[in-house]
Formats: sequence, C-alpha cells, structure tokens
Amino acid sequence: MTEHLYALIMAGGTGTRLWPLSRENRPKQVLPLTSDRAMFQVAVERLSPLFTPDRILVVAGRDQVNLLHAQESGIPEENFVVEPMGRGTAPAIALSALYLRQRDPDAVMAVLTADHHIADEDGFRRVLATAAKVARRGYLVTLGVTPDYPATGYGYIERGEMVENVDDLLAYSVAAFREKPSRVAAERFLADGRHSWNSGMFIWRIDRFMAELAHTMPELMAQLEEIERAIGTPAERETLDAVWPRVAAQTIDYGVMEKARGVAVIPIDIGWSDVGSWASLMDILPGDADGNTSVHAEHLSLGSRNVLVYGSGRLVATIGLANVIVVDADDVLLVCAKDRAEDVKKLVDRLKQDGRKRYL
Amino acid sequence: MTEHLYALIMAGGTGTRLWPLSRENRPKQVLPLTSDRAMFQVAVERLSPLFTPDRILVVAGRDQVNLLHAQESGIPEENFVVEPMGRGTAPAIALSALYLRQRDPDAVMAVLTADHHIADEDGFRRVLATAAKVARRGYLVTLGVTPDYPATGYGYIERGEMVENVDDLLAYSVAAFREKPSRVAAERFLADGRHSWNSGMFIWRIDRFMAELAHTMPELMAQLEEIERAIGTPAERETLDAVWPRVAAQTIDYGVMEKARGVAVIPIDIGWSDVGSWASLMDILPGDADGNTSVHAEHLSLGSRNVLVYGSGRLVATIGLANVIVVDADDVLLVCAKDRAEDVKKLVDRLKQDGRKRYL
Repeated sequence: MTEHLYALIMAGGTGTRLWPLSRENRPKQVLPLTSDRAMFQVAVERLSPLFTPDRILVVAGRDQVNLLHAQESGIPEENFVVEPMGRGTAPAIALSALYLRQRDPDAVMAVLTADHHIADEDGFRRVLATAAKVARRGYLVTLGVTPDYPATGYGYIERGEMVENVDDLLAYSVAAFREKPSRVAAERFLADGRHSWNSGMFIWRIDRFMAELAHTMPELMAQLEEIERAIGTPAERETLDAVWPRVAAQTIDYGVMEKARGVAVIPIDIGWSDVGSWASLMDILPGDADGNTSVHAEHLSLGSRNVLVYGSGRLVATIGLANVIVVDADDVLLVCAKDRAEDVKKLVDRLKQDGRKRYL
Repeated sequence: MTEHLYALIMAGGTGTRLWPLSRENRPKQVLPLTSDRAMFQVAVERLSPLFTPDRILVVAGRDQVNLLHAQESGIPEENFVVEPMGRGTAPAIALSALYLRQRDPDAVMAVLTADHHIADEDGFRRVLATAAKVARRGYLVTLGVTPDYPATGYGYIERGEMVENVDDLLAYSVAAFREKPSRVAAERFLADGRHSWNSGMFIWRIDRFMAELAHTMPELMAQLEEIERAIGTPAERETLDAVWPRVAAQTIDYGVMEKARGVAVIPIDIGWSDVGSWASLMDILPGDADGNTSVHAEHLSLGSRNVLVYGSGRLVATIGLANVIVVDADDVLLVCAKDRAEDVKKLVDRLKQDGRKRYL
C-alpha cells in the first residue's frame, strides 16, 4: 500500500500575520499554535503511521531547515531540502521532486503543508492513502476542501465530471481553478456544490509530475536539469546556489496545475483550516461559553466575549471586551480587533521600514 | 503669613481601581501615575514653598507610612501619623489634629489629599494661602471645585450666601452637602451655578475643629482624650492600639461637616481631578491626535483611537481599538473597555475571594 509513497511538507514562510509570536527566527511552523506541540511536529505526527519519518521530506530555507531539524521529528537530515532562497511553491516542489526522483523514480509524492489545522486526522490519512491510489493511475491529484462557509480568503477549484471512484472517494476532472473570490462569488460557490477550497495539497507520481513540469514550465525544468547534473559531485551546492537566483518565482497553481494534463480534484471533508492569522487561529480553537479562548495564559474575564488570549504564562485580565485578540509575547504586547487581524502584516511592514530588527 | 500653618496629607487607601499597577504593598500614592514622580511626592512638592516639609503631616496605616517615608519627601519621621487601622476620614483627621494640637495649639490645618491631580499648582497654593486667612477668622473652610461637567462620581456642596471676601476669593455659607447625584441631578447642579464638587480638602484652626468635633462626634472626642492622656508616656502606643479598634468608622463629611457650625465653602477652579480609576487618569493625561496616550510604554497604533497604554517598558502594538485601556504591569496584563473602568474593583474582589494573594 505505502510502497514508494512519500510526503513533502512545505515548511517555508514565517507567518507574518501571527506576529508578535512569529518572528524571522521563530516562524509559525515551530510555534505551538493549535496545541502544545509545534505546528511542524503536529504536521509530521498526523502522518503516522501512513508515512514513517524516513519517508517525509521537508522543504524550506536554510534558517528554517535548521530550526525544523532541531524539532526532533525523527526525519533524517538528508530529507530536508534547502532552498537557497524562496521562489514560490512551484520551484520548491520541483526541486524536492528532483531529489526524490533521484532516490526513488517510482515515488508517489504527497505535497502537504505545515501551517494548516486538520481536525479529523484519521480521515486525513484515509484520504491520503486513497488519493495515492488515484495518483498511481496517472492523475495529478489536488485535494479540494468542501467549504462550510463562503470564505473569501481561499482559492477555489471547480470540479467537472467524475473520473474515478476508489474506495468510495470520488475524483473529478477540474473545470477551473479560481482565485480568492468576492463575497458574492464565494456565496455562489458555496451554494452550487461544485466548488472546493484549494488546500494546496497534492498527490502525484513523480514521473507524471516531472512530465507535466517539463510541459508547463520548460525553463524551470531546464534549470532543474542543470542542478541534477551536479548532484553527487563536489559542485552540487555551488550549482544550486548559482542556478536558484535565476529561477523565476511562481506558484504551483499558476505554474503547473492550471495547464497540466490529467489533473483531478478529490473533494474532502476533514476539518481543514488555515492557521494564517490570529483570527483564523481563534476560529479553530475551542472557546468557552462566552466565546473566549486562552492559550498559554490564564484569562480572567469580566464580561468579555469572543476574546482570544495567547499568552506567555502571565495572568491576563480583561473587562468588557468583544472580538479582541490579545497576544502577550515576551518583549511585545499586541491587542488587536479581531476584524483587523489581517492588518498585523501592515504593522510588521512598518517595523521593517523603521529598521526595528529586534521586533522582526 | 504661614505662621502656624500646617498641611495634613491624607494618604490611606490602596487605589483598588488602579489595579494591577496598584497592589496592597504598592498603593497608588507611591505610583508615578500623572508624571514620573509618585503621586505622594507630587502632593508634597506642589505645597512648596507655602509649606516646608517639616510643616507637612501625613496620616496612613503602618504599612503605607513605611512606604511613604521611604519616598524621601523630606518630611520628618515624627510627622507621620500612624492609624492602627483604617476608620474612615473623620477619625484619621481627628487623630492627626490631636497630635498637631500638642505641637502647636494655634495651628491652622489644611487637610489635603495625595490622590488627586491639580493642574494649576500656583493657583492651588494661592487658594490655600487665602483660605487660611478665612480659616483664621473661625470658619471651617471646605474647598469646593467648580464643576466643568455633570460628574456623578463626586459629592456636591451647595453654597448659600457669601460670608467673606478675602483677596477676591469668596467664601459662602453651606446650604447643603449632597451625595453623589444621578445624572439628571448632576446636570441640574452644573446648570444652577450654586454647586461645587466636594474635594475633600479643608482648612480650619485646630481649636475650632476640635470644638466642632466635640460637638458633633462626642464619642470620638472622648476616645481622643483617652489617647491624649497617654501621649508622651510609655503607654502611648499601647493606648492607641487599644482605643482605635473601638472607634466607629465615619467620614468627615457625615461625622463633622454636615453638622458643624461656621462651615464655609470656597469655590475654586484649579484644574482639580480625581485619579481614582484608569478612566479618570486617561482623562487627565494629554493624548495625541487620535486621543491615544501612553505612559512608560511605546505604543505602536494602527487605527486605534482613545487608547491608554500604561506600560512597563515593552512595545505595545494595537490595531483597530477604540476606548480601551491597556495596563502592562509585571506579572499581570489588564485590557479593559474604558467605560468599564470602575469594574476593575470587582475583578480585584474576585481575586480576593479566590485567595490569589500574589495578585493583590
């Protein structure tokens, strides 16, 4: 069943909107956001037993790889793929696929994320096992999350006709990839029952992916081949460092999926949520009767409702607040209206402009 | 001019509504609330040069006297009057008057507070100097603050006819003392021009005060005489400790002023404000163009309005807040809707009930 099956965890990015907890040297993957375990550890552990640690690859920048390797996930050092610099998801996945093909040309590769919450972990593993079977038939499978509200923060995938039914999991052709919609469009997508959220999770045979990559992104493919020729030689690192700055930044959706042949979407319902901002984290964590949630803090509330307190051990008292996020993080305190949680990024941008490195 | 003139600073109370900055062992008098100086130091310094430190008495409980004496105000140790336990303002003032009479039977005594902000300190000293002249004529003078809004948090004094005009400062008979009014009544008081806020500041000759005390609170007077007989004997402390628990708690307004003869009110306009709660402190401190105020903190605001940040050196970032108070105090963080600032007391009560001494 799991023969030739590998996972790739995409672990780049710092999670700016989770500042001040997330910092450049403390990206969100190492933060214990949804439990007392780092997001990365959660992402590794929920793959067990389908994927053993030696079958899990991780791709990220140098600094992040060092941090993630220190997390004691059991993943061997050689499974960490280091990008010299971030170039978007298409080059990161393609580079990882290149290394994986060297190791196992018959590999089936599940591309997964470390920055999402999945409530139904058993269901998630069942989906991956079945989706791998669909992938073995040659499809580039994308996992589409069945929406439960008209989200405007995700891209959508519109399905076409059913193409496979494996173990009662249905795979469809893809009618269209759609960018983050307006509220009106999102409500239409939710109502028509044909749209799924684009989860950014994929499964495919490595040979099929490489064939589609050559077809859709020939320039990147040529650059990969230049790197491939140096693998195992003394010039390997040097070649990667020389080639990578010339690689064009691109997402896997634009670069490959929207143009590739044999793409299928499998709609799934596994309690998947983005953990991109304090507001989305708040929606995931269970609240008390007043909708208040506290993590790593004691929250003493007097008439507060829908308050998230993410603390660092101190007592946090609130009186009469509603829809507010309080993050007590060592040297910075953030208090933010929940509906302004996306603007945390603007605040970090301002600190960057002002050169206030100690807070970045 | 200042012959026989003394000040008594009432310095009891902890300032519960300024929690978590105020604590049992850190009462509001020692906090640098309105400037970088402790409230008590501000209260002493604004009396200079009218009152030199040796002419300033201070009354408070034992623990507070120890804290205040450590403030290096220049006030000699023997000027601190220690109450064995709090019994309200009438016994505290009466006990202090007893000691002062021992020292100078011709004393004129100005009863002042440490927990109010006075914007016009020059004007305040001019008022005290003139009010002392009125007091020398035999009046028990109470200073009434001319209201500038219909406050419901202060008691009011209604004036009668004018009885004195000294240096253009007018003294009136008192028609009535009024308790904290309803909003409607407060608006009427503001409109009729005959009402002043009861500031809790008084000036009188010690002989006149003692005569009225004997008349209005004979039981307390008898208890004071018992203490007086022990003054200078080895039994002084012991007698005070024995008598004080039997003293009935009472305010100076109810106990003396409302029944005394020869009471006069002098309406004054010196920028007087209570510093009783975070909301009242916020109203005193100057804000920026968005109405935001920060003390001992750097406040990085993104679209916040009317936010008070009282910090302890950390960066405090806020996004999209309005009318909120943030107090970052060592081991506790408080975030409070401004219009709920009075409820800080309820929160402290809950901590008391729960026996959480480290936060009290």
